[in-house]
Amino acid sequence: MDRGLIEKARELLNANYISTTLSTVDRDYNVNVAVISVIEMINDNTVLCARFGADKTYANLKETGKGVFMVLLTNNKQSKDGIRVYVEMQDDLVSGEYYNRIRQRMDESNYSRFPLKNCLVFKIIDILPVSMLKPLAQ
Amino acid sequence: MDRGLIEKARELLNANYISTTLSTVDRDYNVNVAVISVIEMINDNTVLCARFGADKTYANLKETGKGVFMVLLTNNKQSKDGIRVYVEMQDDLVSGEYYNRIRQRMDESNYSRFPLKNCLVFKIIDILPVSMLKPLAQ
Repeated sequence: MDRGLIEKARELLNANYISTTLSTVDRDYNVNVAVISVIEMINDNTVLCARFGADKTYANLKETGKGVFMVLLTNNKQSKDGIRVYVEMQDDLVSGEYYNRIRQRMDESNYSRFPLKNCLVFKIIDILPVSMLKPLAQ
Repeated sequence: MDRGLIEKARELLNANYISTTLSTVDRDYNVNVAVISVIEMINDNTVLCARFGADKTYANLKETGKGVFMVLLTNNKQSKDGIRVYVEMQDDLVSGEYYNRIRQRMDESNYSRFPLKNCLVFKIIDILPVSMLKPLAQ
Protein backbone atom coordinates (compact mmCIF):
# COMPACT_ATOMS: atom_id res chain seq x y z
CA MET A 1 0.00 0.00 0.00
CA ASP A 2 1.04 3.55 -0.70
CA ARG A 3 3.00 5.07 2.18
CA GLY A 4 1.22 8.39 1.83
CA LEU A 5 -2.19 6.75 2.12
CA ILE A 6 -1.07 4.75 5.17
CA GLU A 7 0.09 7.91 6.92
CA LYS A 8 -3.07 9.75 5.97
CA ALA A 9 -5.20 6.88 7.28
CA ARG A 10 -3.30 6.93 10.55
CA GLU A 11 -3.70 10.67 10.94
CA LEU A 12 -7.40 10.78 10.07
CA LEU A 13 -8.46 7.62 11.95
CA ASN A 14 -6.53 8.49 15.07
CA ALA A 15 -8.01 11.98 15.21
CA ASN A 16 -11.33 10.24 16.00
CA TYR A 17 -13.25 12.82 14.00
CA ILE A 18 -16.97 12.92 14.64
CA SER A 19 -17.48 12.09 10.96
CA THR A 20 -15.86 8.65 11.17
CA THR A 21 -18.13 5.85 9.98
CA LEU A 22 -17.96 2.09 9.58
CA SER A 23 -19.99 0.35 6.87
CA THR A 24 -20.75 -3.35 7.34
CA VAL A 25 -23.04 -6.03 5.92
CA ASP A 26 -24.95 -9.09 7.08
CA ARG A 27 -25.05 -12.43 5.27
CA ASP A 28 -28.17 -11.39 3.33
CA TYR A 29 -26.35 -8.36 1.88
CA ASN A 30 -28.17 -5.84 4.07
CA VAL A 31 -25.68 -3.00 4.35
CA ASN A 32 -25.39 -0.79 7.41
CA VAL A 33 -23.39 2.31 8.25
CA ALA A 34 -22.74 3.62 11.74
CA VAL A 35 -20.84 6.47 13.31
CA ILE A 36 -17.78 5.19 15.16
CA SER A 37 -16.35 7.19 18.03
CA VAL A 38 -13.26 5.55 19.49
CA ILE A 39 -10.70 3.87 17.24
CA GLU A 40 -6.93 3.66 16.95
CA MET A 41 -4.73 2.61 14.06
CA ILE A 42 -1.88 1.05 16.03
CA ASN A 43 0.38 0.06 13.13
CA ASP A 44 0.36 -0.05 9.32
CA ASN A 45 -1.95 -3.07 9.29
CA THR A 46 -4.12 -2.89 12.38
CA VAL A 47 -7.04 -0.82 13.68
CA LEU A 48 -8.56 -1.22 17.14
CA CYS A 49 -12.18 -0.20 17.62
CA ALA A 50 -14.05 0.25 20.90
CA ARG A 51 -17.47 -1.44 20.74
CA PHE A 52 -19.89 -0.09 23.35
CA GLY A 53 -23.03 0.43 21.23
CA ALA A 54 -23.29 -0.36 17.50
CA ASP A 55 -25.28 -3.56 18.00
CA LYS A 56 -26.12 -4.00 14.31
CA THR A 57 -22.57 -3.25 13.21
CA TYR A 58 -21.27 -5.80 15.70
CA ALA A 59 -23.76 -8.47 14.59
CA ASN A 60 -22.81 -7.83 10.94
CA LEU A 61 -19.12 -8.19 11.68
CA LYS A 62 -19.73 -11.49 13.46
CA GLU A 63 -21.55 -12.69 10.33
CA THR A 64 -19.35 -11.50 7.48
CA GLY A 65 -16.29 -9.89 9.10
CA LYS A 66 -15.79 -7.22 6.45
CA GLY A 67 -16.20 -3.47 6.48
CA VAL A 68 -14.87 -0.09 5.48
CA PHE A 69 -14.07 2.88 7.65
CA MET A 70 -14.52 6.33 6.16
CA VAL A 71 -13.41 9.66 7.51
CA LEU A 72 -14.96 12.48 5.52
CA LEU A 73 -13.90 16.05 6.11
CA THR A 74 -15.97 18.79 4.58
CA ASN A 75 -14.44 22.08 5.51
CA ASN A 76 -16.82 23.97 3.31
CA LYS A 77 -19.53 23.24 0.82
CA GLN A 78 -17.20 22.89 -2.14
CA SER A 79 -14.29 20.73 -1.07
CA LYS A 80 -13.95 17.42 0.62
CA ASP A 81 -11.10 15.32 1.85
CA GLY A 82 -10.83 12.06 3.69
CA ILE A 83 -9.88 8.42 3.53
CA ARG A 84 -11.43 4.98 3.10
CA VAL A 85 -9.88 2.09 5.00
CA TYR A 86 -11.06 -1.39 3.99
CA VAL A 87 -10.82 -3.93 6.80
CA GLU A 88 -11.50 -7.47 7.95
CA MET A 89 -12.16 -8.30 11.57
CA GLN A 90 -9.37 -10.42 13.00
CA ASP A 91 -10.23 -10.61 16.66
CA ASP A 92 -12.95 -9.73 19.17
CA LEU A 93 -11.45 -9.19 22.61
CA VAL A 94 -12.92 -8.70 26.06
CA SER A 95 -9.63 -8.45 27.95
CA GLY A 96 -5.89 -8.12 27.43
CA GLU A 97 -3.43 -5.57 26.10
CA TYR A 98 -5.47 -4.28 23.15
CA TYR A 99 -8.65 -4.18 25.21
CA ASN A 100 -6.91 -2.12 27.90
CA ARG A 101 -5.37 0.13 25.26
CA ILE A 102 -8.70 1.06 23.66
CA ARG A 103 -10.32 1.31 27.12
CA GLN A 104 -7.71 3.95 27.94
CA ARG A 105 -8.50 5.84 24.74
CA MET A 106 -12.20 5.68 25.65
CA ASP A 107 -11.37 7.06 29.08
CA GLU A 108 -9.78 10.07 27.42
CA SER A 109 -12.88 10.67 25.25
CA ASN A 110 -16.43 11.91 25.88
CA TYR A 111 -17.50 8.27 26.12
CA SER A 112 -15.52 7.44 29.26
CA ARG A 113 -18.55 6.45 31.32
CA PHE A 114 -19.76 3.77 28.91
CA PRO A 115 -18.90 0.15 29.62
CA LEU A 116 -16.54 -1.20 26.94
CA LYS A 117 -18.11 -4.35 25.56
CA ASN A 118 -15.51 -5.43 23.00
CA CYS A 119 -12.21 -4.39 21.53
CA LEU A 120 -12.54 -5.23 17.84
CA VAL A 121 -9.25 -5.85 16.01
CA PHE A 122 -9.23 -5.19 12.27
CA LYS A 123 -6.65 -6.05 9.63
CA ILE A 124 -6.31 -3.34 6.98
CA ILE A 125 -6.89 -4.78 3.50
CA ASP A 126 -6.75 -1.62 1.43
CA ILE A 127 -6.70 2.15 1.73
CA LEU A 128 -8.21 4.50 -0.84
CA PRO A 129 -8.76 8.22 -0.99
CA VAL A 130 -12.30 9.50 -0.86
CA SER A 131 -13.61 9.31 -4.40
CA MET A 132 -12.41 12.43 -6.07
CA LEU A 133 -14.36 13.07 -9.19
CA LYS A 134 -13.92 16.81 -9.15
CA PRO A 135 -16.59 19.23 -10.33
CA LEU A 136 -15.44 20.83 -13.56
CA ALA A 137 -15.00 24.56 -13.77
CA GLN A 138 -17.96 26.23 -15.41
CA MET B 1 -42.25 4.40 8.58
CA ASP B 2 -42.26 7.38 10.88
CA ARG B 3 -43.51 10.55 9.16
CA GLY B 4 -40.88 12.69 10.86
CA LEU B 5 -38.08 10.46 9.61
CA ILE B 6 -39.50 10.49 6.08
CA GLU B 7 -39.58 14.29 6.05
CA LYS B 8 -36.10 14.48 7.51
CA ALA B 9 -34.81 12.06 4.88
CA ARG B 10 -36.38 14.15 2.12
CA GLU B 11 -34.89 17.37 3.47
CA LEU B 12 -31.39 15.99 4.02
CA LEU B 13 -31.15 13.89 0.85
CA ASN B 14 -32.54 16.61 -1.38
CA ALA B 15 -30.10 19.18 -0.02
CA ASN B 16 -27.37 17.13 -1.76
CA TYR B 17 -24.95 17.85 1.07
CA ILE B 18 -21.32 17.16 0.28
CA SER B 19 -21.34 14.62 3.13
CA THR B 20 -23.85 12.29 1.47
CA THR B 21 -22.55 8.74 1.07
CA LEU B 22 -23.82 5.44 -0.27
CA SER B 23 -22.56 2.15 1.19
CA THR B 24 -22.86 -0.96 -0.96
CA VAL B 25 -21.54 -4.52 -1.09
CA ASP B 26 -20.50 -7.11 -3.66
CA ARG B 27 -21.49 -10.78 -3.58
CA ASP B 28 -18.36 -11.69 -1.61
CA TYR B 29 -19.33 -9.27 1.18
CA ASN B 30 -16.73 -6.68 0.27
CA VAL B 31 -18.26 -3.44 1.50
CA ASN B 32 -17.70 -0.10 -0.19
CA VAL B 33 -18.65 3.46 0.62
CA ALA B 34 -18.67 6.36 -1.82
CA VAL B 35 -19.56 10.01 -1.79
CA ILE B 36 -22.71 10.66 -3.80
CA SER B 37 -23.31 14.06 -5.32
CA VAL B 38 -26.63 14.24 -7.14
CA ILE B 39 -29.71 12.52 -5.73
CA GLU B 40 -33.39 13.29 -5.29
CA MET B 41 -36.00 11.70 -3.04
CA ILE B 42 -39.03 12.12 -5.29
CA ASN B 43 -41.68 10.59 -3.02
CA ASP B 44 -41.94 8.76 0.31
CA ASN B 45 -40.62 5.54 -1.21
CA THR B 46 -38.27 6.47 -4.02
CA VAL B 47 -34.80 7.97 -4.44
CA LEU B 48 -33.22 8.80 -7.81
CA CYS B 49 -29.43 8.84 -8.03
CA ALA B 50 -27.28 10.17 -10.86
CA ARG B 51 -24.52 7.71 -11.72
CA PHE B 52 -21.65 9.34 -13.59
CA GLY B 53 -18.65 7.93 -11.69
CA ALA B 54 -18.87 5.48 -8.78
CA ASP B 55 -17.87 2.43 -10.82
CA LYS B 56 -17.42 0.14 -7.81
CA THR B 57 -20.70 1.28 -6.25
CA TYR B 58 -22.48 0.64 -9.52
CA ALA B 59 -20.95 -2.83 -9.94
CA ASN B 60 -21.92 -3.69 -6.35
CA LEU B 61 -25.51 -2.59 -6.91
CA LYS B 62 -25.74 -4.73 -10.04
CA GLU B 63 -24.56 -7.70 -7.95
CA THR B 64 -26.54 -7.37 -4.72
CA GLY B 65 -28.88 -4.39 -5.19
CA LYS B 66 -28.76 -3.21 -1.58
CA GLY B 67 -27.30 -0.17 0.07
CA VAL B 68 -27.69 2.60 2.60
CA PHE B 69 -27.45 6.33 2.08
CA MET B 70 -26.14 8.43 4.94
CA VAL B 71 -26.15 12.17 5.35
CA LEU B 72 -24.02 13.20 8.30
CA LEU B 73 -23.97 16.78 9.49
CA THR B 74 -21.32 17.80 11.97
CA ASN B 75 -21.80 21.42 12.77
CA ASN B 76 -19.13 21.35 15.40
CA LYS B 77 -16.91 18.80 17.08
CA GLN B 78 -19.45 17.80 19.70
CA SER B 79 -22.77 17.32 18.00
CA LYS B 80 -23.93 15.41 15.00
CA ASP B 81 -27.16 15.01 13.12
CA GLY B 82 -28.21 13.18 10.02
CA ILE B 83 -30.16 10.32 8.56
CA ARG B 84 -29.69 6.78 7.27
CA VAL B 85 -31.87 5.65 4.37
CA TYR B 86 -31.80 1.91 3.58
CA VAL B 87 -32.56 1.13 -0.05
CA GLU B 88 -32.84 -1.52 -2.72
CA MET B 89 -32.19 -0.75 -6.36
CA GLN B 90 -35.37 -1.09 -8.41
CA ASP B 91 -34.32 0.18 -11.79
CA ASP B 92 -31.32 1.29 -13.81
CA LEU B 93 -32.35 3.75 -16.52
CA VAL B 94 -30.57 5.33 -19.46
CA SER B 95 -33.50 7.34 -20.76
CA GLY B 96 -37.03 8.45 -19.87
CA GLU B 97 -38.73 10.71 -17.36
CA TYR B 98 -36.63 9.86 -14.30
CA TYR B 99 -33.41 9.98 -16.32
CA ASN B 100 -34.31 13.43 -17.63
CA ARG B 101 -35.32 14.58 -14.16
CA ILE B 102 -31.98 13.65 -12.55
CA ARG B 103 -30.12 15.00 -15.62
CA GLN B 104 -31.80 18.35 -14.96
CA ARG B 105 -30.74 18.23 -11.31
CA MET B 106 -27.18 17.46 -12.45
CA ASP B 107 -27.34 20.41 -14.81
CA GLU B 108 -28.10 22.65 -11.83
CA SER B 109 -25.13 21.28 -9.87
CA ASN B 110 -21.35 21.58 -10.09
CA TYR B 111 -21.35 18.33 -12.06
CA SER B 112 -23.26 19.63 -15.06
CA ARG B 113 -20.50 18.88 -17.57
CA PHE B 114 -20.26 15.18 -16.76
CA PRO B 115 -22.08 12.70 -18.99
CA LEU B 116 -24.89 11.02 -17.06
CA LYS B 117 -24.40 7.27 -17.40
CA ASN B 118 -27.37 5.94 -15.43
CA CYS B 119 -30.34 7.09 -13.42
CA LEU B 120 -30.52 4.60 -10.55
CA VAL B 121 -33.95 4.18 -8.97
CA PHE B 122 -34.06 3.02 -5.36
CA LYS B 123 -36.94 1.84 -3.23
CA ILE B 124 -36.70 3.02 0.38
CA ILE B 125 -36.78 0.04 2.76
CA ASP B 126 -36.17 1.79 6.07
CA ILE B 127 -35.11 5.12 7.53
CA LEU B 128 -33.18 5.48 10.77
CA PRO B 129 -31.60 8.40 12.56
CA VAL B 130 -27.84 8.51 12.78
CA SER B 131 -26.92 6.37 15.75
CA MET B 132 -27.27 8.61 18.73
CA LEU B 133 -25.46 7.14 21.65
CA LYS B 134 -24.80 10.44 23.36
CA PRO B 135 -21.66 11.16 25.34
CA LEU B 136 -22.54 11.36 29.02
CA ALA B 137 -21.89 14.52 30.94
CA GLN B 138 -18.63 14.35 32.84
